[in-house]
Amino acid sequence: MSKTNILIAQGGGPTAVINESLVGAVLESRGFDNTGSVYGAFHGVSGIVNEDFINLGLESTENLENVAKTPCSALGSTRDKPDQKYCQDIFKVLKAHDIGTFFYIGGNDSSDTLRILAEEAVGADYPLRCIHIPKTIDNDLTVNDHTPGYPSAAKFVASAFAGVNLDNRALQGVYVGVVMGRHAGFLTAAAALGRKYDDDGPHLIYLPERNFSMDTLIRDVKATQDKFGRCVIAVSEGIHDDSGAPIVTKLAKDVEKDAHGNIQLSGTGALADLLCDAIREGTGQKRVRGDTFGYLQRSFMGCVSDVDQMESRAVGVEAARFAHDGAQGVKRDGTVTIQRTGSGDSYAVEYKLSKLEDVAGKTKVMADEFIADSNCDITGAFVDYLKPLLGSGMPEPYRLEAERVGKILDR
Amino acid sequence: MSKTNILIAQGGGPTAVINESLVGAVLESRGFDNTGSVYGAFHGVSGIVNEDFINLGLESTENLENVAKTPCSALGSTRDKPDQKYCQDIFKVLKAHDIGTFFYIGGNDSSDTLRILAEEAVGADYPLRCIHIPKTIDNDLTVNDHTPGYPSAAKFVASAFAGVNLDNRALQGVYVGVVMGRHAGFLTAAAALGRKYDDDGPHLIYLPERNFSMDTLIRDVKATQDKFGRCVIAVSEGIHDDSGAPIVTKLAKDVEKDAHGNIQLSGTGALADLLCDAIREGTGQKRVRGDTFGYLQRSFMGCVSDVDQMESRAVGVEAARFAHDGAQGVKRDGTVTIQRTGSGDSYAVEYKLSKLEDVAGKTKVMADEFIADSNCDITGAFVDYLKPLLGSGMPEPYRLEAERVGKILDR
Repeated sequence: MSKTNILIAQGGGPTAVINESLVGAVLESRGFDNTGSVYGAFHGVSGIVNEDFINLGLESTENLENVAKTPCSALGSTRDKPDQKYCQDIFKVLKAHDIGTFFYIGGNDSSDTLRILAEEAVGADYPLRCIHIPKTIDNDLTVNDHTPGYPSAAKFVASAFAGVNLDNRALQGVYVGVVMGRHAGFLTAAAALGRKYDDDGPHLIYLPERNFSMDTLIRDVKATQDKFGRCVIAVSEGIHDDSGAPIVTKLAKDVEKDAHGNIQLSGTGALADLLCDAIREGTGQKRVRGDTFGYLQRSFMGCVSDVDQMESRAVGVEAARFAHDGAQGVKRDGTVTIQRTGSGDSYAVEYKLSKLEDVAGKTKVMADEFIADSNCDITGAFVDYLKPLLGSGMPEPYRLEAERVGKILDR
Repeated sequence: MSKTNILIAQGGGPTAVINESLVGAVLESRGFDNTGSVYGAFHGVSGIVNEDFINLGLESTENLENVAKTPCSALGSTRDKPDQKYCQDIFKVLKAHDIGTFFYIGGNDSSDTLRILAEEAVGADYPLRCIHIPKTIDNDLTVNDHTPGYPSAAKFVASAFAGVNLDNRALQGVYVGVVMGRHAGFLTAAAALGRKYDDDGPHLIYLPERNFSMDTLIRDVKATQDKFGRCVIAVSEGIHDDSGAPIVTKLAKDVEKDAHGNIQLSGTGALADLLCDAIREGTGQKRVRGDTFGYLQRSFMGCVSDVDQMESRAVGVEAARFAHDGAQGVKRDGTVTIQRTGSGDSYAVEYKLSKLEDVAGKTKVMADEFIADSNCDITGAFVDYLKPLLGSGMPEPYRLEAERVGKILDR
């Protein structure tokens, strides 16, 4: 029986559970008789062209299990988007190391990289099996019910808003929290899962699925202030006006773009500061505070969904099985996708191998049924969708409940 | 035996464990025979003048225990700083409700409020026992070895830097994390406890105890980039130039001040953005990202030090005991302070009643022995100081360790 050498790499933004997928694919692959070497490439496709490999066949299972519980791509990542020349360089290296299966753990940009690579391999008549393993905190991959990495980031965002809501209740005013998410509002919407009592924030949620206007924001904040005496707002970094222009570009002098043509939205507090200034000016409210959750959302140690952990491991394991099954018969490229088969208390999923071109470079956004008619809140259907993904151990706030004491003094 | 009515309130910025102190003082006070009513004032001293009280004698122990585990002042807080007129209004209310003991949970501004109130009470010949219960994430109260609330915020900051260090290692560049702390760098310094491996960030730590210069920053970042190919920086929001002017005021158009005269530093991403721009310009590095940790540091649900939880409960309990002991004999105002009596594995503390004027309005900063000679790092002595406070369950990162694969291709 001929042995298949395997290469695995990680691309795009890290998640808190991305190494579960790495370790799942490595351990499962190592268990098959026809597996030869199992290599990891450092920093995604850039590590392939640089022939920068680690021999994952030599890692102890104990250390792999420790790495699985460590956030952020253990192999390192990249934002490179290979063109044809880049792919030819990749092939040279893959051929030299006799790689038969390539697993790439990533989001929609990484799956597009894999699609190009798979096409190039066919064109070059090189027998390469390309399997995409999904991850993204944005939850924006098509075909998938949800994406590994999202539930843990969502748990962080929900926990953070549960906390800042309490902070804002203690020292009242307006609070703006800016959450990651370029085109899809799933992560921003997760802020709603931090609510427990009727008057809990976030009171306003602005998603990139709807056009944003400063006038509407000011009107919404005033109405919330009148009702609750305070206002907590969750905003996606990707909010844009009705022409599609991101609100943050109204302030930024220079717009930074990555190799995929995406405008850089994270790593700056500009949007929160812009919105706070507008609220101060538009409402007369003095205490207006803005935070940008930034990189903590995808890398925080110690706030992980156990459901996400389990599923992230599973997509890695399934990728190895799909590749192995393929090796027995027809060559099949593809992407592992998550399908929900039960909801609520009967929450369950199954894993399928879908076509790369159905996911690659495509973006899923929130369905209309998840967004309230007010355009500044989410629906119960979204709560039902997200709740089982957060897993066990969501912290729950409590309030003092006793009666007020009667006033004695006349005023 | 005459009964003593008790009032308790919370002032200043919330912490993740401040309600442990509230519940400790309430439950312990309720257990004494001579305790009459136990009231809570909403939003600190402002709730007293507004006679806005809750009857904490009616809260179930079960709900109080749930509230104890909930972050952020359950009674609400205030930034009000009472003058003489304000204090006279407070006295009217305290007299009307026959309050004999007032517990105020807060930081150095709140302890100063209590000092003024205690003096006014003496001047007005009103028999009021004033006990200050310490809390502050800044850890800047004099006399205390450390302050309740600080260890949990420190655990959040250390965990956050452990995560962003991994993120920065996966996608290399420069990362700036801005941490709360006006005059004292304790919380920023906690970032160092997120390090495990020799090349882990934060590689540079800038504290308000030392003068800050942009030229030095650029030089330090370049040197770190040359050494590690990346750079993670922890910066206190309170960094200032050699004239004492906060760096953030170099950018801000309007400077916001609170009733205590403090310039508003938090709730804006301006400092991180200013530093990122300077690093981009000064080093030529393209990928420079900045986060401001903001209100998550003091309110995050699910990242709490169990040592801090226990001690925060204890200072509330001890306050009630000191007040009760005082009731048996001499009237004693004061502030509960934490003294360390054992270090390392033998870590232990004891609680004392210290004089209000020794803590009120004063600020402790980091000792020279905690700051490295380089002025951009902390010492082993600081690690030894902080480590036992973080308690159990600090997450630990792991790395892949196997050998690199030999390169085959000639270049």
